Amino acid sequence: MAQPIITLTTDFGLVDSYVAQMKGVILGIDRSALIVDVTHEIPPQDIVRGAAILQDCVRAFPAGTIHVCVVDPGVGSARRIVAVEAGGQRFVGPDNGLFSFVTSEHSPQRVVELKNSAYWRQPVSTTFHGRDIMAPVAAHWSLGVDAARFGDVTSQALVELEVPAPYNTAEGITGVVLWADAYGNLVTNIAENLLPIELRDRLVVEIGDVRIQGVRRFYADGLPEKLIALIGSSGRLEIAVNKGSAAERLPGGEGMEVRVFES
Amino acid sequence: MAQPIITLTTDFGLVDSYVAQMKGVILGIDRSALIVDVTHEIPPQDIVRGAAILQDCVRAFPAGTIHVCVVDPGVGSARRIVAVEAGGQRFVGPDNGLFSFVTSEHSPQRVVELKNSAYWRQPVSTTFHGRDIMAPVAAHWSLGVDAARFGDVTSQALVELEVPAPYNTAEGITGVVLWADAYGNLVTNIAENLLPIELRDRLVVEIGDVRIQGVRRFYADGLPEKLIALIGSSGRLEIAVNKGSAAERLPGGEGMEVRVFES
Amino acid sequence: MAQPIITLTTDFGLVDSYVAQMKGVILGIDRSALIVDVTHEIPPQDIVRGAAILQDCVRAFPAGTIHVCVVDPGVGSARRIVAVEAGGQRFVGPDNGLFSFVTSEHSPQRVVELKNSAYWRQPVSTTFHGRDIMAPVAAHWSLGVDAARFGDVTSQALVELEVPAPYNTAEGITGVVLWADAYGNLVTNIAENLLPIELRDRLVVEIGDVRIQGVRRFYADGLPEKLIALIGSSGRLEIAVNKGSAAERLPGGEGMEVRVFES
Repeated sequence: MAQPIITLTTDFGLVDSYVAQMKGVILGIDRSALIVDVTHEIPPQDIVRGAAILQDCVRAFPAGTIHVCVVDPGVGSARRIVAVEAGGQRFVGPDNGLFSFVTSEHSPQRVVELKNSAYWRQPVSTTFHGRDIMAPVAAHWSLGVDAARFGDVTSQALVELEVPAPYNTAEGITGVVLWADAYGNLVTNIAENLLPIELRDRLVVEIGDVRIQGVRRFYADGLPEKLIALIGSSGRLEIAVNKGSAAERLPGGEGMEVRVFES
Repeated sequence: MAQPIITLTTDFGLVDSYVAQMKGVILGIDRSALIVDVTHEIPPQDIVRGAAILQDCVRAFPAGTIHVCVVDPGVGSARRIVAVEAGGQRFVGPDNGLFSFVTSEHSPQRVVELKNSAYWRQPVSTTFHGRDIMAPVAAHWSLGVDAARFGDVTSQALVELEVPAPYNTAEGITGVVLWADAYGNLVTNIAENLLPIELRDRLVVEIGDVRIQGVRRFYADGLPEKLIALIGSSGRLEIAVNKGSAAERLPGGEGMEVRVFES
Repeated sequence: MAQPIITLTTDFGLVDSYVAQMKGVILGIDRSALIVDVTHEIPPQDIVRGAAILQDCVRAFPAGTIHVCVVDPGVGSARRIVAVEAGGQRFVGPDNGLFSFVTSEHSPQRVVELKNSAYWRQPVSTTFHGRDIMAPVAAHWSLGVDAARFGDVTSQALVELEVPAPYNTAEGITGVVLWADAYGNLVTNIAENLLPIELRDRLVVEIGDVRIQGVRRFYADGLPEKLIALIGSSGRLEIAVNKGSAAERLPGGEGMEVRVFES
């Protein structure tokens, strides 16, 4: 069997050595681990953003990949730490909603609450469970240890995020901007399957007092500096500016309501 | 034969999961790929900067390395995507000028226009050819597939950038500042071979209304806070401040004219 | 024997290709090297910060790891470049104090001044010894070359940093804030072993005109937005804000005096 990949998604930033410490612990247990950074720039303690990034990226990774996710404002408190199998992929992190976007698509096959400290780094810091619990468990999982040995297989439901879902109105669909990506594209919670392909030229996307005609196919398919609506690479409706930043043009875009209807 | 390295150079930033998605796709095809990030902080859609970064870094990589470069403002439009062999190294990316600094030094041995979708990830997003076309082609190339299978071998010239070249004047040489690096050093388009070693103490470097006497050998070879001129690690003339930032001292430095002459 | 890990700690930033060039050189010599980035965001030329980051991270890495550290304001001048064995780990970098926090805990077993250019990349740039001397030496060391071959084994003491040490007062202990981490936690030079566990509830931590009662166990163990004192993951006393930034609440926190005493 191919060597599993271990991905890391955190809000640690790249200035400190926290991420490297996790990698040192992983490689100390499984020297052949293939470690891939997803991002360490999740806004501090932003669980919704972490959950969405995770949902976007799992589709690109091979089956069996282990995703370690540390956005963990409750570190040291009573929140559970879990190992989850869902959709052919594996996850390790705090049970605080981080996995709820993934599990909304793929019901978890198995959830294990981490309790067996034999698989942890000792002593366990009260502030850095990513390094002392999650990283070593991921490395042992990567080596082939059965997840059941990490603690208690549980049927207690995972924590779910209260995330805004798009809803139908008399005119069409209403959603919200989830975040701006690094290009300034405003990413919404409206998935592409809610927007029938044959209607896209006729759709109007309204955000604030701006009306955008048509849902386009790609960024270059618009006049420079003009606001456009398109299906982004994560399969969500995005508001963008060709060769520019929609986030600059629509400040306060995050959280803004987006209405889609037929013209 | 040693496992090829695959490098990634993009303008994706490190906040989103785009880079990780490319790595997931590569490792899904070639689990033994050695992936190295060059930078993901190319200013958005800045093809000149991408071309220069690529030119600087290829010299440090072993023969056969595959460089995947995604600075692609035209994604989804009619621009070609190419696989290029030049100077013993290999390149995959949009044909928009990204490779023109490298190919100005090393004529391409072979250029293939990517057309064979059998080597692509399906379905191909209209906005993320880096993940769906370039990453999988690089991974198959790394596995040993002959580039000719990726599409049509072409003799059509690659797109060239209109980049400022230094020129000779009655007094000496005139060039421009290409960019400021992370230290605030102003990197020019004047290559070291244009500045004879035996003359360097006598040369004057003029930028704006500042005159700098002599081209030095290293950063520490100057008084603190004094502007100095030196040959940087990429082999270009740079304006720097010992223990400080030339970019702060000379705001608007990027694009400024730099004149070099004998005193 | 397991493949050694090579870590990289620099002040190069992630915008330029400097880090990638070092990796290209390493992989050109030892294709099986496991390269781990610690951080490349050391503030430019901040040797103290580099020394502290190094001290924090070495504990998490397996024995034999090679740590390459390039915070090198004296590049090209007369400062020595050294290979150091200490505490079961290995280090390569300029002898400017970068290793002094590590060697204050673990006396060096062996120090070699790098002189043998047979192990260097040629030609050696005057501005980038990280790529041309340190990276190739680390790669040869990783391949199993004995460090003595890299130059002269020396008994000359390594450069030590003049770092503020905490000191005892009539009331308790006085230290300083070393830096703010990416979360805005203010990290001090007061190590946890200076604060007896049984006293921690009764301790008062004073910074500026703020008094904090008790040293807590973890971030979530405090009211939101309240300043707290706790032992951070690096084993140092930190000032933090639960779900917030202490650095924003106490501007100019870096270098501020911190007093700890019994209430």
